[in-house]
Parts: sequence; C-alpha cells; structure tokens
Amino acid sequence: MSARPAIDRPAQSIHAPVIRVAGAASTIRSDCLAIEEPLEIRIDALVGARRQIKSISITMRTPGFDAELAAGFLFTEGILRSPADIIEIVGCGQGTGAHDGSNTVEVRVRDHAVVLWPAVERHFYSTSSCGVCGKASLDALEVPGLQPITRDGFKIAAAEIHTLQEKVRAHQAVFEQTGGLHGAALFSSDGELLAVREDVGRHNAVDKLLGWQFMAGMTPLASRLLFLSGRASFELVQKALVAGIPMIVAVGAPSSLAVELAKRFDLTLIGFVRDGRFNIYNGEWRVNSR
Amino acid sequence: MSARPAIDRPAQSIHAPVIRVAGAASTIRSDCLAIEEPLEIRIDALVGARRQIKSISITMRTPGFDAELAAGFLFTEGILRSPADIIEIVGCGQGTGAHDGSNTVEVRVRDHAVVLWPAVERHFYSTSSCGVCGKASLDALEVPGLQPITRDGFKIAAAEIHTLQEKVRAHQAVFEQTGGLHGAALFSSDGELLAVREDVGRHNAVDKLLGWQFMAGMTPLASRLLFLSGRASFELVQKALVAGIPMIVAVGAPSSLAVELAKRFDLTLIGFVRDGRFNIYNGEWRVNSR
Repeated sequence: MSARPAIDRPAQSIHAPVIRVAGAASTIRSDCLAIEEPLEIRIDALVGARRQIKSISITMRTPGFDAELAAGFLFTEGILRSPADIIEIVGCGQGTGAHDGSNTVEVRVRDHAVVLWPAVERHFYSTSSCGVCGKASLDALEVPGLQPITRDGFKIAAAEIHTLQEKVRAHQAVFEQTGGLHGAALFSSDGELLAVREDVGRHNAVDKLLGWQFMAGMTPLASRLLFLSGRASFELVQKALVAGIPMIVAVGAPSSLAVELAKRFDLTLIGFVRDGRFNIYNGEWRVNSR
Repeated sequence: MSARPAIDRPAQSIHAPVIRVAGAASTIRSDCLAIEEPLEIRIDALVGARRQIKSISITMRTPGFDAELAAGFLFTEGILRSPADIIEIVGCGQGTGAHDGSNTVEVRVRDHAVVLWPAVERHFYSTSSCGVCGKASLDALEVPGLQPITRDGFKIAAAEIHTLQEKVRAHQAVFEQTGGLHGAALFSSDGELLAVREDVGRHNAVDKLLGWQFMAGMTPLASRLLFLSGRASFELVQKALVAGIPMIVAVGAPSSLAVELAKRFDLTLIGFVRDGRFNIYNGEWRVNSR
C-alpha cells in the first residue's frame, strides 16, 4: 500500500485581494482563503469477472491528505473493511484554478478484496415502500454491523478535556490564517495530541484522520478520542463508531440524532467544550473527575 | 401546487438531560438539542411512457419547511426550472425518534414538466476519461446554464450591511436555544429582513429559503441579498446564482472556489461581517459607501 507523496502536501490556502470595510472606511488588503476543490474518489476493483474503475463519490475538499481522505471515506462508509485490501492509492489528472495537483484519487484494491458495494449505493438509491419510508431512509443511512463500544478501557480526566481545544488551536495553522476550515484531531487517553487535519468539509477532516489510522492498521481505535472543532452530527458519530473510537469531544453542539446514536452504541459524547466547561450528553463513566 | 401544513411546522429542538461540567464541578441539567433527521426527496414524474417515483436524495435536516426544502433542492440543483411544473408536494411515512412527522417528501410534477434527469445524477456518476478527470469532476458539479448577474440594479449601503447580523440574530430562535443550527436569511436591498430559515445542514437552510421563493414564483431574486450565518462554499454560491441572487453576505469565510465562482458570474461576495466590519471578495460596485 502506497500513496504518491506529491498528492499529499499541496497548498491549503491562497492569497487574494480583498476590500476591507470598517465602519465607513475601506482599504484594499491581501486575505488568505482556504482552498476548496472537488475530489473524485474511484475504486479499481474486480466486479464479476473483470476489473473495473467505479466512481464512488465527488466531495468538495481542501487539497492534502487525499489518499487518507479516500481511504477514510471508504472505511467509515462501510465500503472497505481491511487496509490489507488496498494495493495502492494514486492521484490522476490535474486540478484547476487555485490547486494544480490532482483532483482524482483511485483506490486499487486486491482481486479478492471484500468491497461492500451495497454500502456504495446507500446514499443513492432507496427501494423502500412508502408505508415505512421514514424509517427506511434512516436505515439506509446506517452503516451495517456497528458494534457497541466496550465500557471497560478508555477513560480520561476532566482536567485533560479542558486542555484539548488549546492544544488543537496551536496546531490549526490554516484555520488561523483563513478562518475557513473545520478541524478534527485525535488524542490519546492522557491528552496527548496525535494529529490534526483541516478541511472545508467537516466530514473530510474526520475521514483524513481516520483514513490515516486505517491505512496504518491501527483501527479499531479503542484508546483514542476524536476532537471536533465544530458540531457533532449523526454522520460524524457514525464514522467514529465504525473506527471503534470511544469518545467524541466537540466545540459545538451535538444534534438529537448524534446523541441518540451515541447512546445506542455506548459512545461518550461531549459538546460545548470551551472556557473550562463542557457538557456530557452520554457516557460520563469514561470521564474521571480527578 | 400545495403542501400539507402538517409537514411544515414540527418541533425543531428537543430537551435532553446533560451533565454540565465546569472546572471540577458537575451538575445535571436540561439542555436543548437541534433535531436532526433524514429527509428522503422523491420525484413522481413521467419517465418515458409511464409515471414513476424516483428517489433523488437523502439529506440530514432539521424538520420543518420540508416542502420548501425539496423544491429548493430540485430548483438549485438544476433539476426543475419552473414552479408551474409542480402539481403538489406531499409528505409520506412516519419519522422516528425525536421527530414524529414525515421523513419523506414526494414532489409530484406534471406529465409535461421539464425534469433535467442528468442533473439528478451529477453527484453520482462520472464518465470522464482519466486525463481530464480533475476538470471533469468540477464540470460535473456545475449546474449547466448559469448566467452572470447583471451589474445594473441591486445596490445596498455599507451601513445597512453592518446591521444584517443583528437582525438575523433576533429571529434565530432555535439557534439561541441549541447553538446547533445554521441560519440563512433573505433581505431586500434596503436591509429589510424577509425570512430566516435554520437547519443542521447549511445547504438545507438555503434550500428552504430559495425553495419558498421558487414555489411562490418569485425567482429570479434580482433584488434580494442572501445572508449566511456560517461560511460561503462553492455549492452555496452556486445555489444563489441559480436563483439569480446578486449578493451573498456571510458571517464566516468564503472558500477559494466560492470567490472564483462569484467572480465568474459577477456575484457580490462579502465575508466576515461582524462588529462593524466586513470583507468584499468580489463585486464592490453593489456596495454604496453612504
């Protein structure tokens, strides 16, 4: 499994002229913009008797860590289950405009890889009859085979949780410049920051982080905490569950369905972490008061 | 064209118990969560010789204004062009969990409606050959037939722009309670607030707003300003362009591609509007200094 380094460290922001208005005064200055570009994710796999290349998704993302983003997307959407199934991830084609790198990644998987094609199509098709359609839509969104997180194991001190945001901020280089990126970070249970990923799309920031760990063979991430710079949605909680992460700490609010999913699968969900405070929506048993 | 009122005004938030941690102290209190539920959008239309029901999209949204959301999605994604093509929009099925309303809407269109099926599939398929795939992905994301906004017409005073955020805040009821929703608002050129829509998904908040105007036969919205409580992305600028809106004012940052698209189609794009300041990324000719 390899990824061409060239597709992994492009610029994440560009400078652009802007007219800054303050009250009635205006001045021209240079501003820094987060780069947003489409990324097409393809799988090259055996379908029936012969290999085919299938387009799986087009996502608007900030360039960088594209191989991890693709791997993380395929993993957390339930399409691939094992990093050993990946032969290589390569970029192809040229970008446009601000980004001159590749805007397509192709994930080449082994002939005998388990590719869960129904998961590929879960966002695209619905075969439910109308009488149960609300429930069926929700079912269609759920990755099959999610397991509850064990209640033994991961614990972290409340005092450590108060320190997480500051640690992430110190590493969120592009956000500081542009204000335009979502951040996701992985921490150990003693509050050590392992990595930060930033993206115009919050799902992408999480996929880049989890794809990196998936490709390194580190999943399930039973002793890791996922930090989110924004809000916690159903889809983000689900991605954490697929990766076996026991705790999410978000700067923003969780949604109703995020809390519901956390409760069903025993994930600790914390929101509004800021200024020495936070709210525990589920799983307080993983937070030590000392 | 009609929409069952029952699907339009459900609860947008629920109360849930939460453990509030402040420093080393913790208390149990009731918190308010923004409701997140899947919405399946279907079209009932003539396909070839007979009518069929096709599932177009499943989006995670906050219940409320579902008919407007569906109409806005179909309009701003370039699938429907005329409100006269819609016979009715109805909810079907039952929701789950926090939301007991419908989680499916069916848009019934006339036999002779122009349904742009290729636009339905633009997110799902890509037929590009690899050599040009980056460019092709971007092309696939663009709604065909976008027109530049006329430079004559809409203008607004800088002093009015400074007042927009406060006006929206006074109406963002659910955000105040939950901190969990994105807001989108429509203003007139003299700074009058016409409507605010809130949603866990920022695309949805915009679709609800634009769908409402589309169904009312008010598009193109040549004398309207779109206000966004968060960041301005490519997709949101594109939705505004489809609706013919000449100006976007966002509290957050724009992305590189949002600015690029605004420049291509002469849309005025303003970001970081707060505390008596804002940045003009394109189209300063629509801002009067008086």
